[in-house]
Amino acid sequence: MTRVYNFCAGPCTLPLSVLEEVQAEFLDFRGSGMSIIEHSHRGVEYDAVHEESLALFRQLFAVPDQFEILFLQGGGVLAFSMVPMNLLREGEEAAYIRSGTWGVGAEKDAAFYGSVYTGWDGKPHSYSRMPAPEEIEIRPGTRYLHITSNETIEGVRFVDFPRLGVPLVADMSSDYLSRPIPWELFDLVYGGAQKNLGPAGLAIVVVRRSVLESSNRKLGSYLRFDLQAEKRSLLNTPPMFAIYMMGKVLNWMRAVGGVAEMKRRADGRSGQVYRAIDESGGFYSSPVERDHRSVMNLVFRLPSDELDAAFLKGAEAVGFFNLKGHRSVGGMRASIYNAMPDEGVDALTAYMTEFAARHG
Amino acid sequence: MTRVYNFCAGPCTLPLSVLEEVQAEFLDFRGSGMSIIEHSHRGVEYDAVHEESLALFRQLFAVPDQFEILFLQGGGVLAFSMVPMNLLREGEEAAYIRSGTWGVGAEKDAAFYGSVYTGWDGKPHSYSRMPAPEEIEIRPGTRYLHITSNETIEGVRFVDFPRLGVPLVADMSSDYLSRPIPWELFDLVYGGAQKNLGPAGLAIVVVRRSVLESSNRKLGSYLRFDLQAEKRSLLNTPPMFAIYMMGKVLNWMRAVGGVAEMKRRADGRSGQVYRAIDESGGFYSSPVERDHRSVMNLVFRLPSDELDAAFLKGAEAVGFFNLKGHRSVGGMRASIYNAMPDEGVDALTAYMTEFAARHG
Repeated sequence: MTRVYNFCAGPCTLPLSVLEEVQAEFLDFRGSGMSIIEHSHRGVEYDAVHEESLALFRQLFAVPDQFEILFLQGGGVLAFSMVPMNLLREGEEAAYIRSGTWGVGAEKDAAFYGSVYTGWDGKPHSYSRMPAPEEIEIRPGTRYLHITSNETIEGVRFVDFPRLGVPLVADMSSDYLSRPIPWELFDLVYGGAQKNLGPAGLAIVVVRRSVLESSNRKLGSYLRFDLQAEKRSLLNTPPMFAIYMMGKVLNWMRAVGGVAEMKRRADGRSGQVYRAIDESGGFYSSPVERDHRSVMNLVFRLPSDELDAAFLKGAEAVGFFNLKGHRSVGGMRASIYNAMPDEGVDALTAYMTEFAARHG
Repeated sequence: MTRVYNFCAGPCTLPLSVLEEVQAEFLDFRGSGMSIIEHSHRGVEYDAVHEESLALFRQLFAVPDQFEILFLQGGGVLAFSMVPMNLLREGEEAAYIRSGTWGVGAEKDAAFYGSVYTGWDGKPHSYSRMPAPEEIEIRPGTRYLHITSNETIEGVRFVDFPRLGVPLVADMSSDYLSRPIPWELFDLVYGGAQKNLGPAGLAIVVVRRSVLESSNRKLGSYLRFDLQAEKRSLLNTPPMFAIYMMGKVLNWMRAVGGVAEMKRRADGRSGQVYRAIDESGGFYSSPVERDHRSVMNLVFRLPSDELDAAFLKGAEAVGFFNLKGHRSVGGMRASIYNAMPDEGVDALTAYMTEFAARHG
């Protein structure tokens, strides 16, 4: 087997050691005579897995005791609906930042479940930056401000989170556990696991306990955050394989240095690629303002469509996959999540420099 | 490794050959240099998997062209909410059969999203049988009648589906693809994959296309059946591993004879266990009326709590796991899903007969 470098925006590369562990015990989980996926979600074997994944997530992301951690399904997109359903009561409104594709999507879905308004719109800026705090409109009494900490498609991120006296709700799908966050600013954080944390099919919602005390209970059972918390995310059968694998990824993350190390790596590796862009004499360009560039999803362009095609073809020939940018943005996108080996980034930047020299 | 017989009500035993295939290709899916769970859900490799699982589900369950097949998340419990959200319009009402724990749960959740009433209540009968068609109350203009084809906890099932001139909506979580169904009676069928079809984290909704034409669009995007159909269940990242594994389970099912063979096996194997119960001279008893007994979840009792405990202890010693009944029902429950080997049922009935002879 030749393992390739996978720069996919998600699902994406996972630690090889984790994949090997899962493979080794796939037929017989801890000597039980059955696969982890055949175990009862009410049994002692799975319960230990569930609790370990919860505990590791709390430990690594430094989630304070005042927050509950929920393992749900439906991805960030179902959470677009669940957040306003649970949090917005009659007469309350929420502000949304339209920072890119996902921020816009979150606001659109929320509008079916409460009164929402746009606190800032990045469209006039072609989604090339996040707002400065003073640019964000917050009406008095706003229940929460929804942000997308990192826009996967446009490659723009909040470096600092807005401190405006209104609780934040953040979609962190594409930079979950890649950096510590100031929990005192947040009422709720959510995101899918399928980028930094494991396979697709698991969304993790972290919600302040005081929010649950006044959350909406007039919802179908699956959709109630308070009930999911009360049932430890075992209201019905959870996505056990994804929770099990996330536990292994979190164990790997802890062994290599935790979230602080993930941040150090992301800063270093994204810096390396952005240098290759900025020092290419204009051959490569980034559409994102320098101080707002994502350290997870690195968007860049070549001078022409022909060169885009040649770049991608050459990349696949040497084992770099999924570098094509999202169709709505074009160009290239290198997604460098937690589990990407440094060697992958070294090899990519070497290829970029060599390609620019040859075609520039 | 010693493989045990797993009689869990779900998640549950899967075909060993399928587990072995998944294990063998877990690090390198079809020579791509990455695991199936690292692939993009927009890539050609995963797309082939997605399409194959859709096609096999349609072929094996004989789903007519007038129906869409959706791969969703949140299990049957999220579908409890999604069904009335999508199907019930202002002024319409739906009838629900309270046939057991899940039927009651479905009605309770639905009441938040529309006008519902109880068409029949099994509680006065201790959930020991399903209703005869003439016992079901259907008010004029009822949009649909919701049934639970098989109650996993109480072990009771509809042998024939009620033909009352009102479209049926069925939760088939615990007998999905274990028998052919008369599609002309149904507007929608749903259920989790984690019993007969694969690992937890995937729910399959089969919905008549004409229903989608008039379904509610004022919902968050994830919750809209029409949008999920339009996007081929790729609105956001689907539970790829579960869809991939279901494809393999369906391939296995096709190779051994399809749904007709699953039905033949279920009838034969459940008959074998029920005979061991009925011919035990009263040592074992079934709380379910004979013509309504589940062929998937076989509920039975021993004469005392002490014998229950001894039965379970002895069973685990010889490698039969998860035979304890649900806490709300007590006694034993042997769940014999599609992938249970015949040898497991032979061994269980031999153990039952021997245990009764020793303790009766």
